[in-house]
Amino acid sequence: MQRAEPQEFRTVLSSMCTEPHPAAREAAERFLATNPGDPATYRSVAELEAQTVAALGDLVGLADPRGYVASGGTEANIQAVRAARNRGDAAAPNVVAPESVHFSFHKAAELLGVELRLAPVDDEHRADPAAMRNLADEDTVLVAGVAGTTEYGRVDPIPEIAALGAEVDALVHVDAAWGGFVLPFTDHEWNFEHAAIDTMTVDPHKLGRAAIPAGGFLARERATLDALAVETPYLESPEQATLTGTRSGAGVASAAAVLDELWPGGYREQYERLQELAGWLAAALDARGFEVVSPELPLVAARLPESLFEALRERGWRISRTAAGELRIVCMPHVTRESLAGFLADLDDLRGASEQT
Amino acid sequence: MQRAEPQEFRTVLSSMCTEPHPAAREAAERFLATNPGDPATYRSVAELEAQTVAALGDLVGLADPRGYVASGGTEANIQAVRAARNRGDAAAPNVVAPESVHFSFHKAAELLGVELRLAPVDDEHRADPAAMRNLADEDTVLVAGVAGTTEYGRVDPIPEIAALGAEVDALVHVDAAWGGFVLPFTDHEWNFEHAAIDTMTVDPHKLGRAAIPAGGFLARERATLDALAVETPYLESPEQATLTGTRSGAGVASAAAVLDELWPGGYREQYERLQELAGWLAAALDARGFEVVSPELPLVAARLPESLFEALRERGWRISRTAAGELRIVCMPHVTRESLAGFLADLDDLRGASEQT
Repeated sequence: MQRAEPQEFRTVLSSMCTEPHPAAREAAERFLATNPGDPATYRSVAELEAQTVAALGDLVGLADPRGYVASGGTEANIQAVRAARNRGDAAAPNVVAPESVHFSFHKAAELLGVELRLAPVDDEHRADPAAMRNLADEDTVLVAGVAGTTEYGRVDPIPEIAALGAEVDALVHVDAAWGGFVLPFTDHEWNFEHAAIDTMTVDPHKLGRAAIPAGGFLARERATLDALAVETPYLESPEQATLTGTRSGAGVASAAAVLDELWPGGYREQYERLQELAGWLAAALDARGFEVVSPELPLVAARLPESLFEALRERGWRISRTAAGELRIVCMPHVTRESLAGFLADLDDLRGASEQT
Repeated sequence: MQRAEPQEFRTVLSSMCTEPHPAAREAAERFLATNPGDPATYRSVAELEAQTVAALGDLVGLADPRGYVASGGTEANIQAVRAARNRGDAAAPNVVAPESVHFSFHKAAELLGVELRLAPVDDEHRADPAAMRNLADEDTVLVAGVAGTTEYGRVDPIPEIAALGAEVDALVHVDAAWGGFVLPFTDHEWNFEHAAIDTMTVDPHKLGRAAIPAGGFLARERATLDALAVETPYLESPEQATLTGTRSGAGVASAAAVLDELWPGGYREQYERLQELAGWLAAALDARGFEVVSPELPLVAARLPESLFEALRERGWRISRTAAGELRIVCMPHVTRESLAGFLADLDDLRGASEQT
């Protein structure tokens, strides 16, 4: 078999994953053969998971967090919907969310037999609490907002969404899978201290620079975790609240290590660099006459002709589109001014060529 | 933070996880920063996943397999139940399985709103197709058997279970999460060639010696995968059939590497060594007067007094119990005659001490 090589990160501009921090990589390699899903056998990695949950609590303003290191944001979002379904007593439960929620909510709804009611967003791509209010009723078990949307990096008005949850007696979930590691350094109101939210998704393996798989599911109350637990015969721990069984100790150990290394100062520096980079890229695209969605967080969307987008992909740039068709560039830690300059040079080259034909 | 260290495998006797093969570890470390959940961006690891699925097809007698590398056996079992629920048209769907199924079936049933009907097993801890037949009806969407049970390593009569599936017009699933990498070297009838089964769980990260997370979900028909797919806006691939979103490229690459290295000769040698080891341990426990469940596959269960079990755990042995209370030792690749001799020496020492008091 010819030896396969991983992709180069230099050309990856659309992923919400990145190169792990060196401390994360070292810990992942060292704990590769551990399973936090069996905490009585793999004790030291189970302790690292408890440390990670505590550190994530600090990140999101929750003093006594319940939760665990999930396989990723999809699992954490599924678990939020599942906990709300199980804690609620609706015969035909529904979840109300902005249409900007990650597609894992569609997956969760299909999986769990819950109706997903999506409200239109406002002109700035943010959740509109009034539109969400119109969809909520006595069978609403969860209202959700996003703190750092996948397509535009927008932060929904979380306090208003939490107020809606209180009004209709539903749990409140915030998906900060991507945004959670930059939002602490902004003025946004998005976390457990800012609003009466019940659960949160916050992924170390995105902007937290842990190794995949290291997502995060956090809950304010123990009852939320209890609503997810199943019994575990033949394991020497009595029950399991996770969606998966065997789990990656590499992900857990890497998250513990990188949080210890970077929180908070290192993450602040990272945020400042990436936000500046996004602003620079947005200005560069704007100067070239493209319509740009201004970057609230380090994510830039801009409207490019389809043919130009395709030509850039053919040159090897790993870029993707929003549902509305805009180019979408995520300024992750591996993205540099240099790589973006190379991208812009190709873009200019292709435009010049197209103008000459 | 004091540097944490992973557990030593020398004392781990109850886990179905193990140390990855060196080829698996090398590949996992090299592909740590890849995400097969985004195949258009992370192309080389997506190709490794296709190779892995093809190799697993070879292992389980399926020429044109559909499927993917899952987070583990729990995900694969959930997906089997989900696909059956979605492909069936029962208003109140149920799944019929022996009571020996892994607890992930309970998780799947709770998650998916499906009734789990468990049939008693026979005196040898194997599924009883007649008892299963009594539980099946027109709302049965799936019948399941286990090829290598978690507690006793038993192989259910898969052809008879498949016949029941055909009779009641239900899909047929085989959970070979643990057994799949030893069964090819036995006379058991358990795979896609032996019976009309629809889906299978077979985990490279157990006896396949891949790195966690590398489970396997395989299906005979494309329609089964289609029944799991959701649309994926903003990814440059149209849909996603996996339960999770971002996935571990380390697990995928490690599975591809170790299958290339060990299938079939290396796995055959491993099976022969582990089966011989299990027989030796069973004889040693029997000679000491304990009631032993004979090892059909490399897993030994034996009835020990509760106090002796607890004392062995206190000496650092990572052992676990069946639901019926028997000691359960899984002869995984990291388990050696030497480590088991150490365990028996501690056992003899503790019995001697207890007889003196």
